[in-house]
Amino acid sequence: MAQKPSIPKGTRDFSPAEMTRRTYIFDTIKDVFSTFGYAPLETPAMENLSTLLGKYGEEGDKLLFKVLNSGDFAAKVQADELSNSNALAAKICEKGLRYDLTVPFARYVVQHQNEISFPFKRYQIQPVWRADRPQKGRYREFYQCDVDVIGSRSLMNEVELISIVERVFSKLNIRVILKMNNRKILYGIAETIGHADKMIDITVAIDKLEKIGLDAVNAELIERGIDAEAVARLQPILELTGDNMSKLDKLEEVIGESETGRKGIEEMRTIFRLIKDLDIYLDVELDLSLARGLNYYTGAIFEVKAVDYAIGSICGGGRYDDLTGIFGLSGMSGVGISFGADRIYDVMCGLDLFPLHATISTSALFVSLGEQEQLAAMRAADMLRKEGVQTEVYPDICKMKKQMEYANRRGIPYVIIIGSDELAENKATIKDMESGKQYKVATEEIVAYVKYAYGVLMD
Amino acid sequence: MAQKPSIPKGTRDFSPAEMTRRTYIFDTIKDVFSTFGYAPLETPAMENLSTLLGKYGEEGDKLLFKVLNSGDFAAKVQADELSNSNALAAKICEKGLRYDLTVPFARYVVQHQNEISFPFKRYQIQPVWRADRPQKGRYREFYQCDVDVIGSRSLMNEVELISIVERVFSKLNIRVILKMNNRKILYGIAETIGHADKMIDITVAIDKLEKIGLDAVNAELIERGIDAEAVARLQPILELTGDNMSKLDKLEEVIGESETGRKGIEEMRTIFRLIKDLDIYLDVELDLSLARGLNYYTGAIFEVKAVDYAIGSICGGGRYDDLTGIFGLSGMSGVGISFGADRIYDVMCGLDLFPLHATISTSALFVSLGEQEQLAAMRAADMLRKEGVQTEVYPDICKMKKQMEYANRRGIPYVIIIGSDELAENKATIKDMESGKQYKVATEEIVAYVKYAYGVLMD
Repeated sequence: MAQKPSIPKGTRDFSPAEMTRRTYIFDTIKDVFSTFGYAPLETPAMENLSTLLGKYGEEGDKLLFKVLNSGDFAAKVQADELSNSNALAAKICEKGLRYDLTVPFARYVVQHQNEISFPFKRYQIQPVWRADRPQKGRYREFYQCDVDVIGSRSLMNEVELISIVERVFSKLNIRVILKMNNRKILYGIAETIGHADKMIDITVAIDKLEKIGLDAVNAELIERGIDAEAVARLQPILELTGDNMSKLDKLEEVIGESETGRKGIEEMRTIFRLIKDLDIYLDVELDLSLARGLNYYTGAIFEVKAVDYAIGSICGGGRYDDLTGIFGLSGMSGVGISFGADRIYDVMCGLDLFPLHATISTSALFVSLGEQEQLAAMRAADMLRKEGVQTEVYPDICKMKKQMEYANRRGIPYVIIIGSDELAENKATIKDMESGKQYKVATEEIVAYVKYAYGVLMD
Repeated sequence: MAQKPSIPKGTRDFSPAEMTRRTYIFDTIKDVFSTFGYAPLETPAMENLSTLLGKYGEEGDKLLFKVLNSGDFAAKVQADELSNSNALAAKICEKGLRYDLTVPFARYVVQHQNEISFPFKRYQIQPVWRADRPQKGRYREFYQCDVDVIGSRSLMNEVELISIVERVFSKLNIRVILKMNNRKILYGIAETIGHADKMIDITVAIDKLEKIGLDAVNAELIERGIDAEAVARLQPILELTGDNMSKLDKLEEVIGESETGRKGIEEMRTIFRLIKDLDIYLDVELDLSLARGLNYYTGAIFEVKAVDYAIGSICGGGRYDDLTGIFGLSGMSGVGISFGADRIYDVMCGLDLFPLHATISTSALFVSLGEQEQLAAMRAADMLRKEGVQTEVYPDICKMKKQMEYANRRGIPYVIIIGSDELAENKATIKDMESGKQYKVATEEIVAYVKYAYGVLMD
């Protein structure tokens, strides 16, 4: 007897019920991206390993899925090469699965730089693969939804992305807070306290402020080799309060000597002023403890959290000045954000935010009670479909009970019955599965009736 | 200097211009699938190799992309295992990239049989990977668009799929012919001429009728070990003419003794009658030379060709009685078809069938001529976006010429200018890029104007 088949650990099947909801999220995001003039891009799942290696740090290299060369790959391997898996992998694998959408985007921009009209506004929604240890909420295959503009230094781009964040989450009905910081400010802080080389250490420590408290952060800073005087100079920054603009004013008093720091402050002032001028209805907060791991960010950084649901950030990104430098094209500044579809899905399930229509894949089912009855049902179903109503005709002529059970399990809101009586009268009985009520209507009224009832249901 | 990066051979980037058109095709197909109540399914890119191996024949096994195990995979390999690439691959790779959507679908149905409500109607649009030698029109990564219903033997399903074919191609404006045959008929023919075991040989030969002519087919049949008497008995079948029903009548005279053959004829009669009864407006033709390679088909088989463009079939499929048997679940009959997105794309490009709106990703661009002007543009752009008009604001304040060039290269039909004059008057100048004509309108009229002009343009 065959064993029940399974899928690789860390990967998932998405059932129709899940896909219907996920599609709602993706479609909402795509719609917003395209109303802002961002155009879709797709890159291949496999990239040359030379494109991917060295772009995600040593740890990242280990997490790349490598694809075995076709043909007689083993013929070129010597026995002594078996002692080193890394070197051997490099010899027998030329390709790997993409690890994110950012490096393929940078690769695309460099490869096609002569065909692209800059500023280049693109979005990309595709799966990525990481050989991470699977655990709750961490998968080996997951979708990223990235939106970037490259080839423009204008802060208007940051503001536009903030608008996109506002629009997406307001459409999805998720209350969010957008936390912002700026890498130039972080550098300015490090420079001011005399540890310009320790920006990463300082931001990693500050990043934990909310989690472990001020004293523990100070202890960690000392541990990371920041001297006591510098830690003391850092205190006013760690204790900043007030609104964004007054935080920036106080910050300027402390780090105003740092040219880079001042530039970062100026950028944030511009962005906050524009958000206000443009009436962007979003809770935006300067959060100096926000660091974000990726080392290619050079300006504003973003992170979005759901207000009513405890989960990590559901969206994040930032400004980078030299993303394409790794592929030999310098001076291309850009800014982008990435929406975390899996977490957004979890938030929406957790808060029960999916609208009814995003949970239904079939609105009406015609039961089949006889050959002539089924023919009449097929004809009527066609009229509904032409009006965009998702309609099925049960394909087998069988007991009513079995067909009703199918409708129930599938969550189909309307069952339409054309039995021999209805056929003779040129009518149909529409059953509202929620209320259990039935209505007999003329065949030519089915469309109007279902569309009306469905409209009421969705309201 | 860094070398310009590239992608693996046989793979493709899809630029925004290509993606916009491809999205139009996919969305059209998805829309039709869902109006018929088919629900989306997605399975992981990587499947266990045990799921994939042995399902596509020996040749197919060779074309699977295998994914190297993570960690110290080489440690478990002995030097003498290097002599056999296949055996070695089996040891160092547990996973492979999916080769089609059919096997993962069968795997999904078996794995989730207790959660699924049968008949299970699903569609799946995802890329597949094959280590084929790349050549014109053949890629190592390409999308398949499959729609299947499993768990129902009713021929109404075949008819529904024919309806779907009609609807998809009529929406895409591609004139097509649907060729049909039936595996049971092919078996009946082989049985009747005394070569039941040679059904494949006979159909492979018949398949070439159009290409090489009757005499060459007869020669090939002899060569394949069919005796002269059998070839003679086959002649009336090879020379069948007339409409579908009369072809079936003549066929019955020849193969009526074969029970399987008779069953196939009866199935086709039912299908053709239903197509007529339901007024499905599609050119459907019984073509006895249609065989289709895949050996899991057991009943009706389909193939769709474009009438006005020379290219292979753009859609195909058939009935299978035991797809899930390979995973231990028998008695699950189903029927499905697959749309060839790449070829459909080629047909639509070749015949210039893409509607204008499917080639435009941004409808309106506001140029940016100063800080205050840009702010006004951002506000006005927002109004357009809220009406669903894809709108950009040029992010950098720079020379008008540069911005107009950007609009031209991007193919944006309307450029909207808010200069200092317009700002003072609370107006905007809308430039129709096609005609070159300009109109000055009040800010609050921008939306109505662009929507009207765009509507006229799209007509």
